[in-house]
Amino acid sequence: MNPPLILDGKAIAANVLNTCRAEAAALTKAGITPGLAVVLVGDNPASQVYVAAKTRTCAELGLLSRQIKLPANTTQQELLAIVRQLNADPAIHGILIQSPPPPHIDEAAIIRAIDPRKDVDGFHPQNVAKLVLEDPSGFVPCTPAGCLKLLEVAGIPTAGAEAVVIGRSMIVGKPLAMLLVSKQANATVTIAHSRSQDLPAICRRADILIAAVGRPEIVKAEWIKPGAVVIDVGINRIADPGKKSGYRLIGDVAYAEVAPRCAAITPVPGGVGPMTIAMLMQNTIQAARQLGG
Amino acid sequence: MNPPLILDGKAIAANVLNTCRAEAAALTKAGITPGLAVVLVGDNPASQVYVAAKTRTCAELGLLSRQIKLPANTTQQELLAIVRQLNADPAIHGILIQSPPPPHIDEAAIIRAIDPRKDVDGFHPQNVAKLVLEDPSGFVPCTPAGCLKLLEVAGIPTAGAEAVVIGRSMIVGKPLAMLLVSKQANATVTIAHSRSQDLPAICRRADILIAAVGRPEIVKAEWIKPGAVVIDVGINRIADPGKKSGYRLIGDVAYAEVAPRCAAITPVPGGVGPMTIAMLMQNTIQAARQLGG
Repeated sequence: MNPPLILDGKAIAANVLNTCRAEAAALTKAGITPGLAVVLVGDNPASQVYVAAKTRTCAELGLLSRQIKLPANTTQQELLAIVRQLNADPAIHGILIQSPPPPHIDEAAIIRAIDPRKDVDGFHPQNVAKLVLEDPSGFVPCTPAGCLKLLEVAGIPTAGAEAVVIGRSMIVGKPLAMLLVSKQANATVTIAHSRSQDLPAICRRADILIAAVGRPEIVKAEWIKPGAVVIDVGINRIADPGKKSGYRLIGDVAYAEVAPRCAAITPVPGGVGPMTIAMLMQNTIQAARQLGG
Repeated sequence: MNPPLILDGKAIAANVLNTCRAEAAALTKAGITPGLAVVLVGDNPASQVYVAAKTRTCAELGLLSRQIKLPANTTQQELLAIVRQLNADPAIHGILIQSPPPPHIDEAAIIRAIDPRKDVDGFHPQNVAKLVLEDPSGFVPCTPAGCLKLLEVAGIPTAGAEAVVIGRSMIVGKPLAMLLVSKQANATVTIAHSRSQDLPAICRRADILIAAVGRPEIVKAEWIKPGAVVIDVGINRIADPGKKSGYRLIGDVAYAEVAPRCAAITPVPGGVGPMTIAMLMQNTIQAARQLGG
């Protein structure tokens, strides 16, 4: 077989971001600088990395960004009050509460408190429903949207394809299945998960396999139909004393053994991750456009 | 093979309705008679049959029912005004707009106008989101809920089973897939549809096959894995001059040839249909309980 096409999420995201930059400039010229507020409660190290990346990308695109870092003992009421302030703030078009918050926080209640028109993560019930109902005025969660965009830009057809999504979370698996089965993508979609019987056999049916499990390298070579397209959503931190940071990132897919069997595959890092941030920027610009000045 | 188990929706629904009757009596004793309003716009003959069945079942259970029949030329504004009246009416706990309304009516806007706490059809965006988010305070659409109940009462396990749903509508296919993949049912779920490639091969993977296409007898014997459970959601009217009504009802499944290959199968009529009405009654009672007096 030919070597697989490496789906370069960094390069494709850079293209999306170029479009975002132009749109942000046009909006700014019209008096509306798109603004994103990112709220981080506590000091989860992975969350800090993500928040820094989002803030940096905003700066690169000319978006206003506001980082709100709160101590781990912030109360539900305090966090709700901050969400309400951001809802009312005309300079802010997108609000993101970095997940996971500390365990004493009722995350679902916080999400419900976000103005759905500013819910650029697409987790508010109104946006969840709009995704199912195929109403394009809603916000699509960034990671599923990024996966679809990656397929689209790479010219990988989804219509009539057998797509298998491993994972049924509210953040990736379920919305991704809804996107793939929509009239926009027209895939035949299977949702598999921890309770599925014979996961390898289910995955071997996939023309497009999307792993969103959160377990390092569980997808092995023998799970792959030769010539399949593999999208790896997993970002798992593995201790690595050889690295300055003390860790390295690996996906849900055993890349080295899987890649030779694929037609195309995303690396980790540099695959879905950059696409997720690009979709967040796109959603923030959509929010600014819809909300106006 | 042994003859298939005929999943007698009428008998199983009668059991559900017995429970509903007792719950309705207890609520009535507590001063809350559950009340269902059914709004019918125009004179679609199938809709008239459904509305009559719903009204009759309410009467049998001791539920208050109100039929509101409106002419086909009712305007969007008039219909919205009626929905608002019903939202405000303390005697009404469930509101159902019989589908399909005439084409000049924006059905989605009417559904959004229903108080979600009275949306016993489970079509309001708030209830759509609650289903995806696995929040049990919402209303589950009656037909998918009826399919799950049928499997549950018949003792057919869903956990780890391969379920294939043919159809991706908002009313059946998508909510059914969400229910089957939930932590309550734990099935591996494939959503297939008109754009799927090789539908017969996809269906042959199914331990549980659910047909919700709306095309008479498209599911043939060779689509069935021997020993599968087949749930037929289709209710198609076929002209039949031998019948007094001039028509008979057939499902999406070619029953005569499919049944011998199955472990269990629902007939049409008398399968999913009665379960749908039973779930509507259950939802109305849930609404009365949640809303109070």
